[in-house]
Amino acid sequence: MANPQLIEALQTKANLLRIHSIRSTTRAGSGHPTTCMSAADLVAALFFTRLRYDVPNPRNPFNDRVVFSKGHAAPLLYAVWAEAGAFPVEHLDTLREFTSDLEGHPTPRFRWYGAATGSLGQGLSIAAGMALGLKRDGIPARVYCLMGDGETAEGAVWEACAFASHYQLNNLIAIVDVNRLGQSQPTMLQHDMEAYAQRFRAFGWEVATIDGHDFEQILNAYERIETVQRPYAILARTLKGKGASAVENKEGWHGKPLPPDMAEQAIAELMPTPEQIERARALRVQPPVSAEWKEPAAGTPTLPTYTLGQQVATREAYGDALVALGKANPAVYALDGDVKNSTFSEKFLAVFPERFVECFIAEQNMVGVAVGLTDCGKIPFASSFACFLTRAFDFIRMAAIGRAPIKLCGSHAGVSIGEDGPSQMGLEDIAMMRAIPDSVVLYPADAVSTVKLVERMAIYPGIAYLRTTRPKTPVIYDNSEEFPIGGCKVLRQSGQDVATVVGAGITLHEALKAYEILREQGIAIRVIDLYSVKPLDHETLIRCGQETGGRIITVEDHYPEGGIGEAVAAAVQGHGIRVISLAVREVPRSGKPETLLAAYRINANAIVETVLEAIR
Amino acid sequence: MANPQLIEALQTKANLLRIHSIRSTTRAGSGHPTTCMSAADLVAALFFTRLRYDVPNPRNPFNDRVVFSKGHAAPLLYAVWAEAGAFPVEHLDTLREFTSDLEGHPTPRFRWYGAATGSLGQGLSIAAGMALGLKRDGIPARVYCLMGDGETAEGAVWEACAFASHYQLNNLIAIVDVNRLGQSQPTMLQHDMEAYAQRFRAFGWEVATIDGHDFEQILNAYERIETVQRPYAILARTLKGKGASAVENKEGWHGKPLPPDMAEQAIAELMPTPEQIERARALRVQPPVSAEWKEPAAGTPTLPTYTLGQQVATREAYGDALVALGKANPAVYALDGDVKNSTFSEKFLAVFPERFVECFIAEQNMVGVAVGLTDCGKIPFASSFACFLTRAFDFIRMAAIGRAPIKLCGSHAGVSIGEDGPSQMGLEDIAMMRAIPDSVVLYPADAVSTVKLVERMAIYPGIAYLRTTRPKTPVIYDNSEEFPIGGCKVLRQSGQDVATVVGAGITLHEALKAYEILREQGIAIRVIDLYSVKPLDHETLIRCGQETGGRIITVEDHYPEGGIGEAVAAAVQGHGIRVISLAVREVPRSGKPETLLAAYRINANAIVETVLEAIR
Repeated sequence: MANPQLIEALQTKANLLRIHSIRSTTRAGSGHPTTCMSAADLVAALFFTRLRYDVPNPRNPFNDRVVFSKGHAAPLLYAVWAEAGAFPVEHLDTLREFTSDLEGHPTPRFRWYGAATGSLGQGLSIAAGMALGLKRDGIPARVYCLMGDGETAEGAVWEACAFASHYQLNNLIAIVDVNRLGQSQPTMLQHDMEAYAQRFRAFGWEVATIDGHDFEQILNAYERIETVQRPYAILARTLKGKGASAVENKEGWHGKPLPPDMAEQAIAELMPTPEQIERARALRVQPPVSAEWKEPAAGTPTLPTYTLGQQVATREAYGDALVALGKANPAVYALDGDVKNSTFSEKFLAVFPERFVECFIAEQNMVGVAVGLTDCGKIPFASSFACFLTRAFDFIRMAAIGRAPIKLCGSHAGVSIGEDGPSQMGLEDIAMMRAIPDSVVLYPADAVSTVKLVERMAIYPGIAYLRTTRPKTPVIYDNSEEFPIGGCKVLRQSGQDVATVVGAGITLHEALKAYEILREQGIAIRVIDLYSVKPLDHETLIRCGQETGGRIITVEDHYPEGGIGEAVAAAVQGHGIRVISLAVREVPRSGKPETLLAAYRINANAIVETVLEAIR
Repeated sequence: MANPQLIEALQTKANLLRIHSIRSTTRAGSGHPTTCMSAADLVAALFFTRLRYDVPNPRNPFNDRVVFSKGHAAPLLYAVWAEAGAFPVEHLDTLREFTSDLEGHPTPRFRWYGAATGSLGQGLSIAAGMALGLKRDGIPARVYCLMGDGETAEGAVWEACAFASHYQLNNLIAIVDVNRLGQSQPTMLQHDMEAYAQRFRAFGWEVATIDGHDFEQILNAYERIETVQRPYAILARTLKGKGASAVENKEGWHGKPLPPDMAEQAIAELMPTPEQIERARALRVQPPVSAEWKEPAAGTPTLPTYTLGQQVATREAYGDALVALGKANPAVYALDGDVKNSTFSEKFLAVFPERFVECFIAEQNMVGVAVGLTDCGKIPFASSFACFLTRAFDFIRMAAIGRAPIKLCGSHAGVSIGEDGPSQMGLEDIAMMRAIPDSVVLYPADAVSTVKLVERMAIYPGIAYLRTTRPKTPVIYDNSEEFPIGGCKVLRQSGQDVATVVGAGITLHEALKAYEILREQGIAIRVIDLYSVKPLDHETLIRCGQETGGRIITVEDHYPEGGIGEAVAAAVQGHGIRVISLAVREVPRSGKPETLLAAYRINANAIVETVLEAIR
């Protein structure tokens, strides 16, 4: 049986957390106090009996990690760190103010937090990535993930559960705050604790089912953390708004601060005595189990080289580059969604199995795991077919909010994949990845530019996306060529150019063919390899457009919206340049690559016809 | 015990399906024969003992539905419909040809198929939508969903499982072809049939675990279909490449046709005797359980009206419009992801609970269910926060490939939501939805335009997206105003306009404020309400740009990429117009709406400053 003094002190802390959550949200005029109140006992007990953390040093690699997957419980997160001594309690008054680090949903702007959460069902994947990173580094820290019950409806949660049990992440603990009430109505399973237990067990987890307001049960469940052999879910039956009689276990109080009078009443109900507060002051977060830690040293990669004219798919060069990067830098990881023999990340697996993570067919979790790995200092390259990365858009969006510098590679871009048909063709990935703040979007046309760009991605401090192509394409660059992010290559030019043709990836080769066809007709065009789609080389595009009769023709194996044509049109606007966009303008069919490039008018002939029409 | 003649005939049919799958993929030079071979016995028995279908009339509403969630088994799908008499077997030779309806992965271009599949883990959601639609219409048909084992790693599968058991869809049967081998390696669970059984059971399904090549067991499992009380998963242990000794149960044969010599050998192994083929000819698909069916009649909705100047959030007007549509047309459905009190789809629930579908926090499944409902003739409006629709991008992409005319509404667009912070702000939804082929993207600024646009969405024959705003905005239109898709409204104009300011939604009101501020300084601007973001009214934009000094300023509560600014820049390119884009250019913080509109320079002051700078 647990020590009654300890339980009294924890109860006091938990009620202080509730009071902070109520006070700060009422002051802010918005927020989710009742969601904080259901989880307060669980969180107080976690921080003051289990957590091992160097509070003044959030970047200490031996720290346990805490992820609030239910990001709307942010006031509780801030409150418990304040009570843990991270910063003065008064700072909680700045909740949701524009200049504050205490945002409505937590981001790493708050120093004690390693990811952005608030889109539900993502935290467990991120936590699993952290847990995997810690394990592979031999760090004995644990990852605690506070989850809501409503968010277990998100499939990504079950992707993460399957992943965590497959990799036997017994350093991962999910604490599920089953408070029964969603935003707009009761959850699907309400307080059916046995249904939750069956689901987690079926996905390979150890499970404890407890009353989340009974400290005896909470502490017993936490005891088992030391000995579990598998990932561990603590399923806690709780009441939303616990402790404030006016709102406890009542519908209609999601995402609403208590009005001042109700807040005052609730605080009065919850307020410990001064003596209790004094006694609870002894509670401390324990320091981490420390050990020596050597920041892994990264060297300069020796990139593979290719021969001019050699036929190499850019997706294969991506695999080559990953291996080269992996050799130079032990922080480089590769993640796959069971397409490694298509994306060629299997090359990395062959050399560095200990830094390869097979995520199976679960792209959301793959991206979440990558985000978690960045928190452990890794440089994770996650790859799949470009089209299937759309599955993870919300995760990528949240990665950007969390400033997690993940690297993504989408292979099998566009209609050039051929017969597999539209479901397998990435035709909206440029639009998706361009819309990620501070992202870079790279689209190489040959093997040399691919490996150079992969090297740049690894050192870019934000989200970087590489788009690769299924068919082989000839090497067109010398191995000494450099490809700075934000640049482009003018591959053909003369003083007589009548138009600038901008290609990238597969369409660059069509542009080069069009150049030859037109040359035989005595017509010169300028050809640009737009390998950096974001950021764009505005200056070169404007200059070339102006030097070639004010005509730019963009050609892309992508839908027009949000793609290269629109990016270029926006970049050169106001400079008297006409931008004609060749792009895929309907849902394509199955067919041979050359048939499809022709049918959707992004091949050499379409370029030739467009040039001739433009100068007529 | 089952009739041995029946079993022999089914075995013959199954081997013919295998032969067709091998032959057509070898001929095409690509495709997935081994995936077809593992499922052939299951599919033969399904079609020739269970399925009830009016083969010449795929649109007969009483037909059972068949969804191949493992869309790469398309050759098997086509083969079984050929053997069912839908079309001559010779047509299978056109597999994967450009002009053929037999695409690499199936789409409704193939008449006997109601959705596009091929992005794994989506079929069960679509099937669940069909099953729900049939149930609510009182149609006694069933939905059969053939799934792969690898795709059960996708969380969306578990969203669909939870949904199906919650709604007690005992007319939904999942047939899981557990062939152990993924694309690049064995699956996570390989042949651990008990793990699969536990998972489906934990999610509330009835389960049968069988040998998927033992017809006795298959038929016994199919018998239970008549009596199950819940959704039913038949988990079948199978061998990939079953029946061709050279590839059976071997790695490295995913997505590869057999070379001609191996194909010949395999076909020789599988070929039934002429007598067996003759005896199997008696197998037939049974006709559906027919009944009278009256196409529901749709009237003209009586839309709600508003008063000029009245403060109404467009999200609330969306709810009003849904109710009006629902009254006029019994095909209108509303779907929610537990935010109905924020999107205001709760208004529809209050009046039409029988046509409301609560999907809980599972946006992928919500969109999949909507796709399935379209196959039952419904007009489903699925709504959530705009940012959370990114969760379903891959489903929306596939809906477009499947020509499923779903309607989506994303609320809480942009920084104007305020303190909840960036995780809750839709800032990339316009980019996402514009990149959907043939989509329309609508963005009303007031209640009148909202209800008019929702009415247009319902009759638009493709995917339509409505973007709504959290704060209340004043009604600016008379109730008689019309809002055709592809139009815009010129709200302020004079012969002295120095620039055209294009706003939409919340920013239109900032543009109108800027107009007033500038007017006091003696400067006239033109103001356009770009309520139709896609398609765009090119003509009006070009004309206004040209009439106002060649200056257009776009203002949007969205990131610049793929948004209104780029769309307008691309639309007016070549006409000597400068397009200045005001948009959110970094990850925003929490704060008051007006603070954020100012901080990210999309408010009236930013517009005024931009106009003054542009004309300086």
